[in-house]
Amino acid sequence: MDITGHNLVGYKKSSKGQIKFKTFDAGNGAPNEVEHFEANDEEIDEAVSLARKCTDEYANLPGTIRAAFLNVIADEILDLGDTLLEIYCKESSLPRPRAEGERARTINQLKSFAALLEEGSWLGASIDTAMPDRKPIPKPDLRKMNLAIGPVVVFGSSNFPFAYSTAGGDTASALAAGCPVIVKSHPMHAGTSEMVASAVIRAAQKINLTEGVFSNLNSRGIEVGKKLVLHDHVKGVGFTGSIQGGRALMDLAASRKEPIPVFAEMGSLNPVVLLPKAAEHLAEPWAKSLAISITQGSGQFCTKPGLILSLAGPDTDQFCMMLSEEIMKITPSTMLHPAINENFKKGLSHMLVQDGVSILAKYDEEVKDYVGKQTILKVDGKNFKANQNLHHEVFGPYSLVVACNDMREMKAIIENLEGQLTGTILSYENELAQYGDILQCLKNKVGRLILNGVPTGVEVCPSMHHGGPYPSSSDNRFTAVGIHAIYRWLRPVCYQSFPNEFLPDGLKNENPLNIVRLVNGLPSKERIL
Amino acid sequence: MDITGHNLVGYKKSSKGQIKFKTFDAGNGAPNEVEHFEANDEEIDEAVSLARKCTDEYANLPGTIRAAFLNVIADEILDLGDTLLEIYCKESSLPRPRAEGERARTINQLKSFAALLEEGSWLGASIDTAMPDRKPIPKPDLRKMNLAIGPVVVFGSSNFPFAYSTAGGDTASALAAGCPVIVKSHPMHAGTSEMVASAVIRAAQKINLTEGVFSNLNSRGIEVGKKLVLHDHVKGVGFTGSIQGGRALMDLAASRKEPIPVFAEMGSLNPVVLLPKAAEHLAEPWAKSLAISITQGSGQFCTKPGLILSLAGPDTDQFCMMLSEEIMKITPSTMLHPAINENFKKGLSHMLVQDGVSILAKYDEEVKDYVGKQTILKVDGKNFKANQNLHHEVFGPYSLVVACNDMREMKAIIENLEGQLTGTILSYENELAQYGDILQCLKNKVGRLILNGVPTGVEVCPSMHHGGPYPSSSDNRFTAVGIHAIYRWLRPVCYQSFPNEFLPDGLKNENPLNIVRLVNGLPSKERIL
Repeated sequence: MDITGHNLVGYKKSSKGQIKFKTFDAGNGAPNEVEHFEANDEEIDEAVSLARKCTDEYANLPGTIRAAFLNVIADEILDLGDTLLEIYCKESSLPRPRAEGERARTINQLKSFAALLEEGSWLGASIDTAMPDRKPIPKPDLRKMNLAIGPVVVFGSSNFPFAYSTAGGDTASALAAGCPVIVKSHPMHAGTSEMVASAVIRAAQKINLTEGVFSNLNSRGIEVGKKLVLHDHVKGVGFTGSIQGGRALMDLAASRKEPIPVFAEMGSLNPVVLLPKAAEHLAEPWAKSLAISITQGSGQFCTKPGLILSLAGPDTDQFCMMLSEEIMKITPSTMLHPAINENFKKGLSHMLVQDGVSILAKYDEEVKDYVGKQTILKVDGKNFKANQNLHHEVFGPYSLVVACNDMREMKAIIENLEGQLTGTILSYENELAQYGDILQCLKNKVGRLILNGVPTGVEVCPSMHHGGPYPSSSDNRFTAVGIHAIYRWLRPVCYQSFPNEFLPDGLKNENPLNIVRLVNGLPSKERIL
Repeated sequence: MDITGHNLVGYKKSSKGQIKFKTFDAGNGAPNEVEHFEANDEEIDEAVSLARKCTDEYANLPGTIRAAFLNVIADEILDLGDTLLEIYCKESSLPRPRAEGERARTINQLKSFAALLEEGSWLGASIDTAMPDRKPIPKPDLRKMNLAIGPVVVFGSSNFPFAYSTAGGDTASALAAGCPVIVKSHPMHAGTSEMVASAVIRAAQKINLTEGVFSNLNSRGIEVGKKLVLHDHVKGVGFTGSIQGGRALMDLAASRKEPIPVFAEMGSLNPVVLLPKAAEHLAEPWAKSLAISITQGSGQFCTKPGLILSLAGPDTDQFCMMLSEEIMKITPSTMLHPAINENFKKGLSHMLVQDGVSILAKYDEEVKDYVGKQTILKVDGKNFKANQNLHHEVFGPYSLVVACNDMREMKAIIENLEGQLTGTILSYENELAQYGDILQCLKNKVGRLILNGVPTGVEVCPSMHHGGPYPSSSDNRFTAVGIHAIYRWLRPVCYQSFPNEFLPDGLKNENPLNIVRLVNGLPSKERIL
């Protein structure tokens, strides 16, 4: 298919606005060809209005139909073949294998939500049968299950043009829940988003869904997103990006007459604790692994290890030397977009002028424009603790080693950190057994603890939790990765004293969906007598 | 025990502040004796600081210990005997049987959370085992389970001095989750709160818990609550009260550097739809039931039916006449406090001056001070739809009948309502089958649907959902009633590649808690090999 630059408002291509913009091929240092039309107010209203109109119908569909929809989306994305991978690479400068890997991940996500819909646990069905003879008052029949919250706005991310954008985890989970989705495409991936959106829409048409279940709106700036978040009929928001951007959306959503939930997955330092014996015995393997983790995807992962805590001394000096050597061996790569590269350079410069900061490694060979030069800095624990500037995420191939005076200082530093997506501990054999307090205080700060690994590489499975205390995410009770992400878009509704015929299938006596339900407090697939 | 008027800061009685106030016995028209000390900044800081210090220890306790704590709280409350019931009645003007019933409910709540802790499903334990040979990359071992969010502030409600106050549903669910609780007692139930708090503290001491797991702070005004919600170390808030009060707390919590969740259960009209044939054939029984439901507890329930939608015509006229007759037979009762009575009168006066409003019934005999005189008003659908003033809750023995022109207008009215805790449909035999659209649009507005019943009387069981779309509650994905209320205070934490010895019991291979866990996506009690 050809990329046209249009918005997709329901099933229609639409280009009513005056503002146009292009995406940028940072690898070639030139804009891509197509001009994309920013959505105007009329298109925003139409997308929301269409979404609202089909909300009940879509939410009430059997889960199996929505499962089929998700599976057909996966097929349609695959059918876009190389053309899709090419525009992905041209709009993100990410290499082809990454495009293929991320597409596979996106397909898997769609399919895992489809499987969840068929399995049925997401309904949270619970039935308490009546006790008409109970004293002093009879107990009524009560049954509850989850229901979609309504239209959801998903903001495409910069760093996952497939997996956390148009048909990525937020969209897949919201569509699975029964929520129509309006995507605000990332301005730098407008072409990729249009192609993926066209796949979603073809799938919707094949499944005969009513128009409005999905729209894709373009915008260069923040106005379209703001209007969407403030729109009366929007009931939830998914976002992956910066703390600044996510917090702005949280504040907007909280300011509404009817506040709505925002699931923002934002910045994180992903601290790595190198325990003393690990520094002594395992400096080399961890230096190698961390060098790769820090520079992978040019350091543009939300789980990049941006902070390494270790004890000052010869072992840590040795580790630092090895890490520096390893990271300098890596060929630096083009960053996603000029603006991200610019922010990376600014962030680095800002770190370099902070008190006590020294350079361990800084790639300084000639590179093409927009290539992110990996850099490792070092500071002592006292300076780090005293200076909040050093606690900011620098998005790109960067990490900061903090040489702590003693474990007490390290613990105080961890206790003083903001919320993080992940926290990693590197331990030599059973060394961790001595540092229960470090594990405890790290646990209080993160959504995922990793032992002897690197935080990059977020497995998609039910036990994954991707969401840490603020500001790493806006609501850490919910995950952005894995099937449990569906719960972000659901609310329970309770039916009191309804006869079988008026109940939704999930709550009917005969259990037509054949799902596990909580019956009088116990899990059961039995029919209700 | 004697009520002293002190705050309970951890295990200490404390009265450092200058401000003192008394509760009021509206039934006798006079203040109660004891002077209560409003907590000052030092006491607020100390309560939060103690809570923070014991957070990890308390959260890490085996669920069985916290279960024992909740059960001992129940025993200690019962041990307070008549003295507690007497102060309850003197501070709320609610009758003795209500005090007994609400105490029983509170005890049951505590015990049901204790049982949940022993059963273990609240941990949401999920295990995905490693696949070291998976291509292209190995799959790590991932395990997640729920963990307490940290110190929680609970605001005592005005209308449930036991069940939604000091050791009520919010406190019981937060303590069960592993969160220390700081209660901001309701100023008009400061004595009741002190007694119940003393029971909680005796229980904590008997179980040998570290000081700080519970504190009880008094305040007459809003400053203590504001400071608590803005306190850095507070991580969640529970509130039952007015929309104005709840929204103020939501806004405060959203304005923090680290926003925190507020679970506010606020106002609701609890619309009742009287279908045409029900109006024709069942006017009498529903008039009787609704008259009781409207006036029960002097109409001071969040689920009081404050809006009755029916079709204009002789059947509805007949129903209105019967409802008026029935409600006038009921002896009016003293409201909770002078301020609530004052607000009731103001709210009523405000309704009476709205366009098209007529009086169906208004109790006008001489009554004692602070008695709430039941009132039923009527308006047509057009006026109701056009006038948002009529959509406000009047807290007290009041309801508004809206006579709609046709079902289309009724549907439009429902679609135009704000979020509600409950929605009720009264149907004659299978009449509801014709009104699927009414059921659907009502479902979109509520957390609980009731067929042929009244909304008052909130059953405490797993299938209950007490929480509707805003403004009836702040986050309708969570219930305030029933064991699932525990999920408000939990966040998942994921452990990646941790050997058995470092895992919490809920995730250990041998399943020492003997709980159902999701193992590689399937529920299982089996040990991990």
